[in-house]
Amino acid sequence: MSRRRFLKQASAVAGGAAAAALASTKSAAQELAAEPWEKIYGAAFTAYGERSRFEQPVIRHIFTPYGGIAPGSGAALSPIEALEGTLTPSGLHNIRNHSGTPEIDPARHQLVVHGLVERPLKFSIDALSAYPMVSRIHFLECSGNSSRAVTPKPAQVPAGAMHGNIACSEWTGIPVRVLLEEAGVKPEAKWILAEGADSAHMSRSVPMEKILDDAMIALYQNGERLRPEQGYPVRLLLPGWEGNMNVKWLRRLKATATPTYTKDETSKYTDLLPDGRAMQFTFEMGVKSVITKPSSTMTLPRQGLYEISGLAWSGAGRIRRVEVSTDGGATWRDAALTGDERPKAFVRFRLPWEWKGGEAVLASRATDERGRVQPTRAEWTSQYAPANTYHYNAIVTWAVGTDGKVTHVFA
Amino acid sequence: MSRRRFLKQASAVAGGAAAAALASTKSAAQELAAEPWEKIYGAAFTAYGERSRFEQPVIRHIFTPYGGIAPGSGAALSPIEALEGTLTPSGLHNIRNHSGTPEIDPARHQLVVHGLVERPLKFSIDALSAYPMVSRIHFLECSGNSSRAVTPKPAQVPAGAMHGNIACSEWTGIPVRVLLEEAGVKPEAKWILAEGADSAHMSRSVPMEKILDDAMIALYQNGERLRPEQGYPVRLLLPGWEGNMNVKWLRRLKATATPTYTKDETSKYTDLLPDGRAMQFTFEMGVKSVITKPSSTMTLPRQGLYEISGLAWSGAGRIRRVEVSTDGGATWRDAALTGDERPKAFVRFRLPWEWKGGEAVLASRATDERGRVQPTRAEWTSQYAPANTYHYNAIVTWAVGTDGKVTHVFA
Repeated sequence: MSRRRFLKQASAVAGGAAAAALASTKSAAQELAAEPWEKIYGAAFTAYGERSRFEQPVIRHIFTPYGGIAPGSGAALSPIEALEGTLTPSGLHNIRNHSGTPEIDPARHQLVVHGLVERPLKFSIDALSAYPMVSRIHFLECSGNSSRAVTPKPAQVPAGAMHGNIACSEWTGIPVRVLLEEAGVKPEAKWILAEGADSAHMSRSVPMEKILDDAMIALYQNGERLRPEQGYPVRLLLPGWEGNMNVKWLRRLKATATPTYTKDETSKYTDLLPDGRAMQFTFEMGVKSVITKPSSTMTLPRQGLYEISGLAWSGAGRIRRVEVSTDGGATWRDAALTGDERPKAFVRFRLPWEWKGGEAVLASRATDERGRVQPTRAEWTSQYAPANTYHYNAIVTWAVGTDGKVTHVFA
Repeated sequence: MSRRRFLKQASAVAGGAAAAALASTKSAAQELAAEPWEKIYGAAFTAYGERSRFEQPVIRHIFTPYGGIAPGSGAALSPIEALEGTLTPSGLHNIRNHSGTPEIDPARHQLVVHGLVERPLKFSIDALSAYPMVSRIHFLECSGNSSRAVTPKPAQVPAGAMHGNIACSEWTGIPVRVLLEEAGVKPEAKWILAEGADSAHMSRSVPMEKILDDAMIALYQNGERLRPEQGYPVRLLLPGWEGNMNVKWLRRLKATATPTYTKDETSKYTDLLPDGRAMQFTFEMGVKSVITKPSSTMTLPRQGLYEISGLAWSGAGRIRRVEVSTDGGATWRDAALTGDERPKAFVRFRLPWEWKGGEAVLASRATDERGRVQPTRAEWTSQYAPANTYHYNAIVTWAVGTDGKVTHVFA
């Protein structure tokens, strides 16, 4: 659906319902009586700007399974239910940490490239800054995102507290292959071990094919240097691949002939199958979408016009299509898309919807450029053992009651 | 130049020079001796993330011409010399304020649509939030950006302190025409007066044609609600048009038959011509570019590989081409572009460059999709009276000395 047609349809609904606008019964002059802030000189310039104090309730959803003894282990999920557009503000980016956020001095940090290379190299942050860079918009999703949807009963939490272990930013950095070419990778090197400088030394093995394709040594996030919680001063970026492989606080890349089988890729981040075996190295994140507005725990304040809006993404490339249902999947309509020209990035989908006060079940279904379609919950569940909580990408359904309350349901 | 060819060329230079990389003379194990932050458990999750303390010197360049008596009047320029990519972090967005930043309660703020309309309307922020939205990435440039370049001698200041009255963000909001259609604009209405809720009641007249084309009532900036310094809770966005017309803290839109000739479009924001007349209503910002790395006041630490990197934009639409010269304009080479698919948005250009220690004069020249080419300083100056400081978009030149020092020159 073209944007023009979408807006025409939306404005037709708005003109018919006009629920959000109040016709003025007073004169414009009366309506425009000055508010207090119009009568006083405003605040001075700031060196680095912050949010309005009225927005400070919008915060990340924090999960620390080991409690106060490990307040930096777990995850902080992005409040996607309160956000709009196709980018995540850096302050609300999701975080998955294994031993807290280290405070790294960029003047001391080094990146070492070694292993099966002709010339082992080390790079200071200053040295890296002189290299040729690329800028790309990509999502980052924890492979455990949506694990709270793998429960016997649907949890009643905000959309971000369930599906917000994801974010999307513009990343700027050096193609990894530029550094590997300088080091001279030996032909027998087929994998790269990436290791972080946190006290957990989080580390993963990455196939050389991905490294030479689109892997990036990221130094900047949304125009400025990386935030500490996203790996300051330098992280690995593997577009479309599960979040933990995008190693933060990157201290070394080691070229190896085989995977290293680190603790982080054997003790976890494997997918348990129905027959009891575990599938290892499921790198690419699946095609997925979620309606963020309206969503679970919200209440529609009145009948009338709404916009159904949400996020879609795929680790395989571009989103080609997002369909939206308001009747629990019986019928589907194509939503308008923003950002669908960007591979492995958030796409915002939108569909105007008039709520006439009845029950409704809202759902979204994404299709990517490879033609892969987001599975139903039943289809996803049949692939794995009940204990598996990684790589959940099933269709999400929200029920709207006659009282306007939006709840999470398994359709 | 394709990205692949660009990277191949860059990596050939890197392989030859290797100036930024130090070959390890110790073993990898010695190089990898743990830093202090690798030995201690890191920081806990935060609800809303902030920058590293090591990045806190990166701040806006603040200009308050009336000093301490009006600390919120003037401008705060974005430190483009320290940024990368195609987006500006919200905390470092440029600001042009006429009477400080008001602190507005979104529960009280109203937007009134009145004048030559069938149905005067008012909208709360909650009501606006239900309307259909669009998300687009656009730059915002003050018409007075680069006014410090209009001096008899070239000022020696960082690039952002001269050319940083500009930023680029993703904006999400409602097409203005959706609200105007609901109000029912009368045929004789040809202009819209937009007025802010700051104590200056900053106001400008906007032709109806622009309003019906791509004007937006913006509620979100880079995924979250607008920052106060960019108009929280709601601003007008006129993609590609001079910044002050994108009225912040928007309180009313009034449909009128003619321009209102407000104080803000008569006492200022007009372009003084050589014959003494002033040109009014120069809305669209010109095609422009500036090299940010390396740039004025920086010093190249060593001979070898560098990437020349900078920003280009045009109020007329897409950037088609950016050429870079390292010999003061005698010869030009095409730079690689990122973001050139986005109209009226930042494009990042990049060109690998090997500095062999001699004198060089760096310059960039942008061309937009209408075929308009960024003028030389002499061409730009000949159009205006010497006192005019608006709409400066001439080619910017940085000289590199044999000592590596980068200075601003008029070439």
